Amino acid sequence: MEADLSTPILDRVTVPADMRGLSMAQLRQLADDVRTEMIHAVGQTGGHLGSGLGVVELTVALHYVFETPRDKVIWDVGHQAYPHKIITGRRDRIRTLRQPGGLSGFTKRSESEYDPFGAAHSSTSISAALGFAMANKIAGQPGKAIAVIGDGSMSAGMAYEAMNNAQDAGNRLVVILNDNDMSIAPPVGGLSAYLARLVSSRPFLELRELAKKLSRKLPAPLHSAARKTDEFARGMVMGGTLFEELGFYYVGPIDGHNLEQLIPVLENVRDAAEGPCLIHVVTQKGKGYAPAEAAADKYHGVQKFNVVTGEQVKAVAKAPAYQNVFGETLAKCAETDARIVAITAAMPSGTGVDKFAKAFPDRTFDVGIAEQHAVTFAAGLAAQGMRPFCAIYSTFLQRAYDQVVHDVAIQNLPVRFAIDRAGLVGADGCTHAGTFDITYLASLPNMVVMAASDEAELVHMTYTAVCHDSGPIAFRYPRGNGVGVDLPQVPEKLEIGKGRIVRGPGDKGGKVAILSLGTRLAEALKAADVLEARGLSTTVADLRFAKPLDEDMIRRLSASHEVVVSIEEGAIGGLGAHLLTLASDEGWTDNGLKIRTMRLPDVFQDHDSPDKQYDTAGLNAPHIVETVLKALRWNEAGLIVDPAEGARA
Amino acid sequence: MEADLSTPILDRVTVPADMRGLSMAQLRQLADDVRTEMIHAVGQTGGHLGSGLGVVELTVALHYVFETPRDKVIWDVGHQAYPHKIITGRRDRIRTLRQPGGLSGFTKRSESEYDPFGAAHSSTSISAALGFAMANKIAGQPGKAIAVIGDGSMSAGMAYEAMNNAQDAGNRLVVILNDNDMSIAPPVGGLSAYLARLVSSRPFLELRELAKKLSRKLPAPLHSAARKTDEFARGMVMGGTLFEELGFYYVGPIDGHNLEQLIPVLENVRDAAEGPCLIHVVTQKGKGYAPAEAAADKYHGVQKFNVVTGEQVKAVAKAPAYQNVFGETLAKCAETDARIVAITAAMPSGTGVDKFAKAFPDRTFDVGIAEQHAVTFAAGLAAQGMRPFCAIYSTFLQRAYDQVVHDVAIQNLPVRFAIDRAGLVGADGCTHAGTFDITYLASLPNMVVMAASDEAELVHMTYTAVCHDSGPIAFRYPRGNGVGVDLPQVPEKLEIGKGRIVRGPGDKGGKVAILSLGTRLAEALKAADVLEARGLSTTVADLRFAKPLDEDMIRRLSASHEVVVSIEEGAIGGLGAHLLTLASDEGWTDNGLKIRTMRLPDVFQDHDSPDKQYDTAGLNAPHIVETVLKALRWNEAGLIVDPAEGARA
Repeated sequence: MEADLSTPILDRVTVPADMRGLSMAQLRQLADDVRTEMIHAVGQTGGHLGSGLGVVELTVALHYVFETPRDKVIWDVGHQAYPHKIITGRRDRIRTLRQPGGLSGFTKRSESEYDPFGAAHSSTSISAALGFAMANKIAGQPGKAIAVIGDGSMSAGMAYEAMNNAQDAGNRLVVILNDNDMSIAPPVGGLSAYLARLVSSRPFLELRELAKKLSRKLPAPLHSAARKTDEFARGMVMGGTLFEELGFYYVGPIDGHNLEQLIPVLENVRDAAEGPCLIHVVTQKGKGYAPAEAAADKYHGVQKFNVVTGEQVKAVAKAPAYQNVFGETLAKCAETDARIVAITAAMPSGTGVDKFAKAFPDRTFDVGIAEQHAVTFAAGLAAQGMRPFCAIYSTFLQRAYDQVVHDVAIQNLPVRFAIDRAGLVGADGCTHAGTFDITYLASLPNMVVMAASDEAELVHMTYTAVCHDSGPIAFRYPRGNGVGVDLPQVPEKLEIGKGRIVRGPGDKGGKVAILSLGTRLAEALKAADVLEARGLSTTVADLRFAKPLDEDMIRRLSASHEVVVSIEEGAIGGLGAHLLTLASDEGWTDNGLKIRTMRLPDVFQDHDSPDKQYDTAGLNAPHIVETVLKALRWNEAGLIVDPAEGARA
Repeated sequence: MEADLSTPILDRVTVPADMRGLSMAQLRQLADDVRTEMIHAVGQTGGHLGSGLGVVELTVALHYVFETPRDKVIWDVGHQAYPHKIITGRRDRIRTLRQPGGLSGFTKRSESEYDPFGAAHSSTSISAALGFAMANKIAGQPGKAIAVIGDGSMSAGMAYEAMNNAQDAGNRLVVILNDNDMSIAPPVGGLSAYLARLVSSRPFLELRELAKKLSRKLPAPLHSAARKTDEFARGMVMGGTLFEELGFYYVGPIDGHNLEQLIPVLENVRDAAEGPCLIHVVTQKGKGYAPAEAAADKYHGVQKFNVVTGEQVKAVAKAPAYQNVFGETLAKCAETDARIVAITAAMPSGTGVDKFAKAFPDRTFDVGIAEQHAVTFAAGLAAQGMRPFCAIYSTFLQRAYDQVVHDVAIQNLPVRFAIDRAGLVGADGCTHAGTFDITYLASLPNMVVMAASDEAELVHMTYTAVCHDSGPIAFRYPRGNGVGVDLPQVPEKLEIGKGRIVRGPGDKGGKVAILSLGTRLAEALKAADVLEARGLSTTVADLRFAKPLDEDMIRRLSASHEVVVSIEEGAIGGLGAHLLTLASDEGWTDNGLKIRTMRLPDVFQDHDSPDKQYDTAGLNAPHIVETVLKALRWNEAGLIVDPAEGARA
């Protein structure tokens, strides 16, 4: 069976202006075309599928009703914006989504004037939209700002902070609550239950009823002028007191797949609202693609797939994913330790906490997208004698930085941070990279910071964290699968602040010492092979701890080697900075020790394959070799070149 | 007139257990005694007065009704906990509040078992209380957790995140909403308006009415067993649908100064609630002390004062406060620039934004305690062409770290961060110290980080930030008054990434180069005097920029001096780390350049006077001299000692 790829209306629509003269029937066809295009594109590229399919009609309706790009449509998270990209001038590149050099999987300002505000982390859209709205107000210029935010994103505090500040924007601000009863995982919390009550207690507005309420705006002509009337508030507001009490007009719930309903409601809000409006739109994740609709996760994030069968091309995993090694190890530890509890912020499977939850549902907490709460909640649990594990991606832990400082580190409470997605992450790009955690954690008093060099080390580190009751401890590990080493049957409790010599002469002394933190260890070992082949005796150490540093070992290796090179999957200010600070505090370099630190460069790197990203970053084996040789001032021929060519000379 | 200092009941109460047999009349007297004691203590020490006075009765009632310390009372922020300290074993030290070596001005775990969770930043209490409650639930042990949170703190997202997760705690969790319609500044936002409507639309419960609703619990005996009844929910819940919709039983509003009302309500909630309860208590900030009640800020934070007259001992300021220099400079710049807007998160006067607001109310945004929203809102404003200034204390900007990374730095949007309270802050202690901002900001691509060395520099940096449209820029400055230099009539636009030589031979070369960032410059100059007197020619540079570093100048000074010492008012990972990284990247130390970095030590320092704190931290002039001499290996007699004594040899 051949899939139907014809997209007759979409073929005529490059940018939103092209669709504004279309009839309702044509708009329906346009939506169908966009859906077809999107399914086929993501079938080739992989990416986020379910979320985009759920907002096809909403995307068409928004660009039809609002005057984009003057009016700003801000997609929260942005992973649902593929249909938006298709009809805002990027259809020709849609099959480059998340590919090297291709379109981002999220909204991005540099990509299009139709992306007024980039995203990837959740719950920023209302704040940003409010910024656009208030700038327009101050400048006295027209233009609406429309935030489209999922019900899952509404669990984050910053969405609430923004709603609490929305009143002054007046009708320049529209919030579309895209309620698909699901973010990545099933919904949690009081707000979610509330939304479910709203939806279940009220049928969608009937067309007839809607027509009455909408001041004769329906069904045609679609462009009739709105009659400004008090009925607007009275007629459209059908519930949603929580939002009303924060100062919004609440409209809904309405069917987000019904253009006949969406368009007049949006037009009415555009023309007649007298204050900020929240439109509660109910959509179905994965809508219109049977395999997605049938899947439990609605094809949230997918690999390349066969469009007809929906079958995804799954890569054969050579080794378990780090997240699962963590989750399973923690579950094993918890069998004999009733104090262990696990916390995730809406990422049960992404963090491996689902493995723990399966065994210990009563000791697992999914707090929704609420990292700030997650961390302080963990601090409270720790203060009452539990052993809490907060499993949060490196980039999302940034959301809870003050809580890590103020509630955990200052109080020296034994919260355990399992930090997934450390380092570069591939197709998700710079917004999801775990770049800064070593820097922002290792600068904190009381904090212990570990990084696993492989999945066996992660087992040890998880257990070490279980045992560490004297204060906070964090351990980081990358996205993806382990390197394939055997997993230890019995986890080992590592000595805090002690690294290990992996190969080479060690204390006996040699030419080069490579101090590795994290999974660059494999590259360090490759580099050592090359260096040894050149006659340079090379020690490779796995530091394990960025804080406290293994000062003894580093001191010994520095004293017995000519060049010391550190390498880490993190930005400036982390391991390298701590190493150099130790060296200068103790005056090692006064006598000419050559130290170099290899780290992520001072740029936000675009998406690419992780290995290619590390190549771009200069953190693969050849770069280590090059760094060493340059420090030794050896050229390709193996000769020592003029030391005076150094930058300082 | 002599103030009446007799405290007959308080004299019999050291810990809460001592009061649990008291009569209602005695409890009233106890509250009066506590109030008297507190006013006199704070008259001697200075500190937070208004907030504590507002919760005297609530404090007595909570410790009377709940079984503290088994039950956990968690005061949000903790600055209102002075009455709590007085009746939980710390009356004998209450006159040491905020003094060196004395009691903290906030709750602190190490101070008392009655402080289950320390605070100082706002809005953490519900998350923490939930941690205690869930730990009790999992362990199957009794014990309630009571969070006492002000209406101002409720504007922060993390309070909402916590409420959204409270349902599972059942009746182990009680939230007391202490509504005094004021945090530090007047309230803002939709929630505040909502609370005002709740209070104004409903009279306090009448005693008679209350008695009926409380299952015969009133007026006596106070300890009768509660009759568990459905009436609880029906009778007590009188509004507050916003909280109900998040899963709380709402009780209130009730008069927070009326023990006859507070105690039975708390008892009823303790004994009969079937889920988490939110009790809406209305209090008056400054209650019971006429000068405080009459003051606009209700004596939020005071100096030492005369108890009879209320007159505060104001220190004579030698120079304007940094915050006001910032606010006034910004207002001046805004006279000719309609794009400048200012944002504060509930700190208009603390940040000097009030000076701007006076001139430009329509371009000023107080978003409440909502730093996350503040930053992304600013990013939205910047994306729409405004020049937003986010004025946030260093320590509170931690709350918005992810927004700084994700919404500002990644998008390279020109948000200006005016970072007050950089470095050590004195009596507020480690929770308010601005320790980490250089580290957590300078590690971000696109970010520019400046630090002002005096108030004239702050004028220049404010103007430089106005002009900087190519990306984000931050400038930090300390708490307190400037050093007394003349303020420039015309602000200067500094060249990005360029420092200045303040004294000494500079490029011509000398023995010692001190690279200073921020207000340690004065100490660096003092140190230079001492060093010069010893015959060591000393260059002092004010780097101005932590990022980008003035690499040219540093390179030249490093090449022409024997010792280079950096100094900053920040933790490891900041200026010093960037300097060392530059030096090692370029191999300067290979030839024996002596570099030392002086920074805040790896501890959370207790409150003290700022100068004493810097002494403890080792960042005053004598420490600089010592660091230089040690690097030169000069002993007190001015002789070079054996270089082999270095740690590495």
